[in-house]
Amino acid sequence: MSTDLVKATYLATRPDRDPEVLAENIAREQSLELTRSLIPDSVADRLLGHILSVSERDTQHWELEIGYPAELVSGQVGQLLHLLYGNISYYPHIRLVDLELPDTLLASLAGPIAGIPGIRAWTGVEERALLMTVLKPRGSDPADLARLAGRFAGAGGDIVKDDQNLVESDLDTFRNRISLCAQAIERAADKTGRKALYLPHVAGSGRHLNRQLDHVARLGLGGVVMCPWVMGLETAAAAAAEHGLMWLAHPAVAGVFTESNTRGIAMPVLLGKLVRIAGADISIFPGSGGRISSHHLHDEAATCKALTAALGALRPSLPCTGGGKTLEQAPQTAHRYGPNCAVLVGGDLIGRGPELEAAVRETIARMFSTDGDVSPA
Amino acid sequence: MSTDLVKATYLATRPDRDPEVLAENIAREQSLELTRSLIPDSVADRLLGHILSVSERDTQHWELEIGYPAELVSGQVGQLLHLLYGNISYYPHIRLVDLELPDTLLASLAGPIAGIPGIRAWTGVEERALLMTVLKPRGSDPADLARLAGRFAGAGGDIVKDDQNLVESDLDTFRNRISLCAQAIERAADKTGRKALYLPHVAGSGRHLNRQLDHVARLGLGGVVMCPWVMGLETAAAAAAEHGLMWLAHPAVAGVFTESNTRGIAMPVLLGKLVRIAGADISIFPGSGGRISSHHLHDEAATCKALTAALGALRPSLPCTGGGKTLEQAPQTAHRYGPNCAVLVGGDLIGRGPELEAAVRETIARMFSTDGDVSPA
Repeated sequence: MSTDLVKATYLATRPDRDPEVLAENIAREQSLELTRSLIPDSVADRLLGHILSVSERDTQHWELEIGYPAELVSGQVGQLLHLLYGNISYYPHIRLVDLELPDTLLASLAGPIAGIPGIRAWTGVEERALLMTVLKPRGSDPADLARLAGRFAGAGGDIVKDDQNLVESDLDTFRNRISLCAQAIERAADKTGRKALYLPHVAGSGRHLNRQLDHVARLGLGGVVMCPWVMGLETAAAAAAEHGLMWLAHPAVAGVFTESNTRGIAMPVLLGKLVRIAGADISIFPGSGGRISSHHLHDEAATCKALTAALGALRPSLPCTGGGKTLEQAPQTAHRYGPNCAVLVGGDLIGRGPELEAAVRETIARMFSTDGDVSPA
Repeated sequence: MSTDLVKATYLATRPDRDPEVLAENIAREQSLELTRSLIPDSVADRLLGHILSVSERDTQHWELEIGYPAELVSGQVGQLLHLLYGNISYYPHIRLVDLELPDTLLASLAGPIAGIPGIRAWTGVEERALLMTVLKPRGSDPADLARLAGRFAGAGGDIVKDDQNLVESDLDTFRNRISLCAQAIERAADKTGRKALYLPHVAGSGRHLNRQLDHVARLGLGGVVMCPWVMGLETAAAAAAEHGLMWLAHPAVAGVFTESNTRGIAMPVLLGKLVRIAGADISIFPGSGGRISSHHLHDEAATCKALTAALGALRPSLPCTGGGKTLEQAPQTAHRYGPNCAVLVGGDLIGRGPELEAAVRETIARMFSTDGDVSPA
């Protein structure tokens, strides 16, 4: 039997059969998907998933730890997702809550091309949490979006992302908008001596997707925003890697995995570990206290940890908490999670009007995690 | 205000705020994602989603019908999914239960390249439901899988698909396996005078995915199996279209959308309408009574309908009910849904051993929907 195991821990809520039987069903369903008697022994020995432990957490919940031979991953992030939750997405009340990969598999993964160290090098921010904003709404004059980008960057803002609703079917319109925003940020950098990281949103598929990425790379921008739960996690990762770009994973649609209590995949696994394994340099997730919040109260901290804790030789991904955070919440978040995180503030910043620059400066000054009132040197 | 609207109906279970307010929040969140006061009127007039109706279904449930300007889809299937369920996947207890597209948008969609008429032309099955089987388990000698394919096809079976666990990181291994299975089916066709449709599973991303598709197309096979909820719905559709191949959409991971009562996207919308819009020629979904079943009892019939009912000029996709069906269930299903469906039988068929051919013949003879006991001419 293989010793290189992907270890998956599932939470079963009010299991519909004996928990041991359920665990064995999961192990078989997710690995070879066939009645045991029809699987040749030589195949079962090599590839059949098996139970590592079954334990009662309380009267309603059982923890089922399954070991899957790492060979089943086939070196593909998509196949890893499939292995962990493909068919059992139809099982009643099974939730993936923890994941551990063997060292051999971890060693074969590239992880983020830049991650936190690369983002710090790009932006020149060495010792504090980062402030991010978003260009929106869709339908705006590109010049207005560029102006917003330039004002935020000029006031010392760190990262500017496109809203994931900014999508064009026409490539020239995309190129024009991106170029205007990039130029505005370039001009701001000339003034401040520090360059904000601008991440355009790219979407779609095939040639259209490739051409957008080509344009971003040719402009010398550092990376892009993609929605991996729309376009496919591995698809997004491969597209960025092919163009040598960083990427920010946007959590659109992923709530369908994370927000149930009894189904899906817990946020620290999905938007933490899996997104990092796929090589996202930044992972946005809905933190607490915003317009969009996860109702799992401890997931914000656990997701930050999954993105930054030691994981083989993989660089840490930058955790970014968002979902309608206010400028007021940014320093609080930085103090809570320390310097290795970013806070996304959109509407509240756009709504500041002529006070935007002052608000950015004041917020960043308060984002040094050692002391909320210390200004940057 | 635009008259070309994507009409989405959401079921809200025990809404956490006034249902009218909730509906307005959804309409804004999914379209422009910004406080109304910060959206310029000219943009709102053109692109803001709005309420079409709000109605109480019972004391626990409200139906919220939202109209989104079709321009927001940007001609991309991925963006359509994002528009329908992106951010609100984090809202509590909102489920997409119905979807209507405007004629202009439908007219711009290609839909399946072959669909039911093309599959009937390929297999020569004119008047009855189709029988499909699956090659597994992973880890088997390719010659054994090819033998299974040849025996099923030789006995008159209609469609052979690869198990979605059959994944190779090495292209030569993939090519060898596919070629062996294709040859076995070719030899069976020489004998029966009727060619089964063989659908290899392709997975991964980028160049590796393309090379697999190239090989399938070069062998003159009709199509492939892909897992759109792993690799991205639009990604899968574009990959098949680029190679002129039919494709079967496998529902792995999609249970995370369909199986909740209060969240996600109902199966007839997700694995019915959306998969058809994306151009899948065949959509597999877990029917009732198998090892894996949807617990939404009426969804099997409704999904069949969504795949086959009139929808612009789009060809009908072939509904295929699976999830551990037995041979005994195949004729029953055919009688229930009529000739325009397929039934997938895996383990129960593989387990027949030397009786496999006789079981296939007898099952197909009973799949004429007019009368369960009439044999084919």
